[in-house]
Amino acid sequence: MAERNVTLDDTIVALAEQKKYSTLRDILVTMNPADAAALFDETEERLLPLLFRLLPKDMAAETFVEMDPDSQELLIHGFSDSELKEVVDELYVDDAVDLVEEMPANVVKRILKQADPETRKLINNILKYPDDSAGSLMTTEFVDLLPTMTAEDAIKRIRRTGTDKETINICYVIDDGRHLLGTVSIRNLILSEEDEAISQIMEENVISVNTLTDQEDVTGVFGKYDLTVLPVVDNENRLVGIITVDDALDVLETEATEDIEIMGGVTPTDKPYLKTSIWETFKARFPWLLLLMISATFTGQIITSFENSLAVAAVLTAYIPMLMDTGGNSGSQASVTVIRGISLGDIEFKDFFRVIWKEMRVAVLCGAALAAANFVKLMLVDRMLFHNPDVTVPVAAVICLTMVCTILVAKFVGCTLPMLAEKMGFDPAVMSSPFITTIVDALSLLIYFRFAVMILHL
Amino acid sequence: MAERNVTLDDTIVALAEQKKYSTLRDILVTMNPADAAALFDETEERLLPLLFRLLPKDMAAETFVEMDPDSQELLIHGFSDSELKEVVDELYVDDAVDLVEEMPANVVKRILKQADPETRKLINNILKYPDDSAGSLMTTEFVDLLPTMTAEDAIKRIRRTGTDKETINICYVIDDGRHLLGTVSIRNLILSEEDEAISQIMEENVISVNTLTDQEDVTGVFGKYDLTVLPVVDNENRLVGIITVDDALDVLETEATEDIEIMGGVTPTDKPYLKTSIWETFKARFPWLLLLMISATFTGQIITSFENSLAVAAVLTAYIPMLMDTGGNSGSQASVTVIRGISLGDIEFKDFFRVIWKEMRVAVLCGAALAAANFVKLMLVDRMLFHNPDVTVPVAAVICLTMVCTILVAKFVGCTLPMLAEKMGFDPAVMSSPFITTIVDALSLLIYFRFAVMILHL
Repeated sequence: MAERNVTLDDTIVALAEQKKYSTLRDILVTMNPADAAALFDETEERLLPLLFRLLPKDMAAETFVEMDPDSQELLIHGFSDSELKEVVDELYVDDAVDLVEEMPANVVKRILKQADPETRKLINNILKYPDDSAGSLMTTEFVDLLPTMTAEDAIKRIRRTGTDKETINICYVIDDGRHLLGTVSIRNLILSEEDEAISQIMEENVISVNTLTDQEDVTGVFGKYDLTVLPVVDNENRLVGIITVDDALDVLETEATEDIEIMGGVTPTDKPYLKTSIWETFKARFPWLLLLMISATFTGQIITSFENSLAVAAVLTAYIPMLMDTGGNSGSQASVTVIRGISLGDIEFKDFFRVIWKEMRVAVLCGAALAAANFVKLMLVDRMLFHNPDVTVPVAAVICLTMVCTILVAKFVGCTLPMLAEKMGFDPAVMSSPFITTIVDALSLLIYFRFAVMILHL
Repeated sequence: MAERNVTLDDTIVALAEQKKYSTLRDILVTMNPADAAALFDETEERLLPLLFRLLPKDMAAETFVEMDPDSQELLIHGFSDSELKEVVDELYVDDAVDLVEEMPANVVKRILKQADPETRKLINNILKYPDDSAGSLMTTEFVDLLPTMTAEDAIKRIRRTGTDKETINICYVIDDGRHLLGTVSIRNLILSEEDEAISQIMEENVISVNTLTDQEDVTGVFGKYDLTVLPVVDNENRLVGIITVDDALDVLETEATEDIEIMGGVTPTDKPYLKTSIWETFKARFPWLLLLMISATFTGQIITSFENSLAVAAVLTAYIPMLMDTGGNSGSQASVTVIRGISLGDIEFKDFFRVIWKEMRVAVLCGAALAAANFVKLMLVDRMLFHNPDVTVPVAAVICLTMVCTILVAKFVGCTLPMLAEKMGFDPAVMSSPFITTIVDALSLLIYFRFAVMILHL
């Protein structure tokens, strides 16, 4: 096969330069909106409005939703008021809310002005819910049915109103006060007799969340009950919206990214790596480095205060990195496992002592095994192979005892701090590797010098 | 409100002891299968078969699927052959495959013996696909339609066959050779005229994956295109199965957990934290600790080889932990961000130099800011406040220059190693904090002593 050097991007640009608009349109129409959006995000800015206007109306809104906020903003600036209205009218309410949340104030004003009054009211209602709550994730476009309808009535209602709804796969049965009574899947509707009453078909055992439920718990509910849609109710069990699984999937991915970034000592950002400016990346990382650097100076203080001992037994210095690293790694292992367990709901605060008891037993196993490996290495490699006369049995004992105690302390710190953070309402992910390492470093040195003083009589 | 000390578990046990089976049944029937499964997993083993037999038949299979493998195995051992057959017949094929994959060989034999021949063939077919492939995730229970059918025919077919299918929300249009031609959503079917041909209604632009597509890529496709079901085709574009979004959600969660665990230096396990034995936890952690401990001894070697210099300028020792920790943290930040970028598809190997260029600029900013902060701290706090005469301007220069260079090296190592690992077909998550820290520790010491020799003429 010959090497192919022409990309789709190049073709699009070439066609645009040659004003071959109908060919361009043909190409765009074959694409899925998500792919068209990805293409647009990579396109030169000057071509963006041109290409977007070539899209058929129904595809335009779907593509718009999938684009980066930067490209969306660019497009909106180029839109006439009527163009903007066309796009906004086609958006589902939850997507419109996402858009409003991403855009700067002046753009938001234009968007809300173009939205029809009903939509504007819905958007404003959803905006009232806290970020990260179920309310801010939901859409209000669902099919509602009355318990007195027959299956046939219900299907008629879906035919009449279904086009504007985000999903019709699950319909919601409500009473006159909009209280949620049950759900009916389209599958059950189709498989039922035409004259059967909705109250007979409906599933009354409904899983729902409150508008104020945290979005992380929302994804947990989706995962636990294998749902594709989840109803959102207010404190009086009145149905106010639904959350679809695609939004739950996004949340799950975003939350995992946030956890991972915080665990790596980076302030989370929404933007993809390559779209973040140098300055933004710097701001996300510098404060953590500074904080951790300041904490690490305490470790330095400990060394300074034992400087005289170290001068007498200089051989001890060489083993500081190994002990500190092993301590840090042991602590990280415990904290990472516990942090993930907390966010998956496997570990709760009531398991506090069970977790500690488990970690302590693992620590004894790890500590004993590593100390034994170390002792053999110290005696065979350092002493006999490299003929280092300073590596005596007492020195090896200091190192190995420190190893065992450090691992015990590290696992203890690593498993308790995330649980305590969670209990106190902080994000347990903060209590991860960087912090644990810094704390364990200091503790391991204190243990080291304590054993050195005791055994080597420094 | 009075303190409530009786839990649901207690009530269930009490009722079982009193043989109040109909009351128990009433309680269980009100529960969602996932909740019943959670209850059963916590129940005393001796009550498990009794409680399970109280469930109505359709709920039994659904509950069974949601239970822990341990409880499933326990139940199967207690089942008569006909009871086992009843449960297995009710399972969707993908759930049956999951069960077979979890159970020990003798149990698998019994399960396959009780499955009807058709199901057994399907299970065996799916078992042939590699773990972690789309083929191993899929189910074969979907609705297929022919392009020549009318909307009315299609709805009739769904009514006739729909009860056994995992979903009817999307139906698949295939030709006589089972090649995938398009999809029709139940929504479009309902909103269409009765006599419209499926070929007219169907969406031809179908997103599908191959049976061998990696499951991580499968979740990416769900996320990108906001799907609830995804068809799986073979190399000839013949439809062989579908994957539903609930399985994608599980994969996303499992993969994020695996990444996080590997990044924390722990071999990933499937089991929840509190269900893993001490021995399993030990085995997941010990090899990493040993490997990292051995690597850290090289750092120790570096210190040993500069022992004489350190004896002359003992003040340098106190700053080793701070420089090593800051280097490690800087490297972790870069690696965590790049690893997550790779797994979200934001970063590809073609971005290699863009990523390095970006990290280098961030490193210069971080390095300069931290070095400046350090210089001020060394001069004001260590020298003037604590009256440490050893902290001279040349010493401070050594420390600050080391800081800048270490951060540059750390960010470089942190961003390149994950990309190289990915390129070579390894899991980039391995190139995370623990490894980066160990490598950066050694490099930072080399830089430190190099500057010390140059500037302090040791």
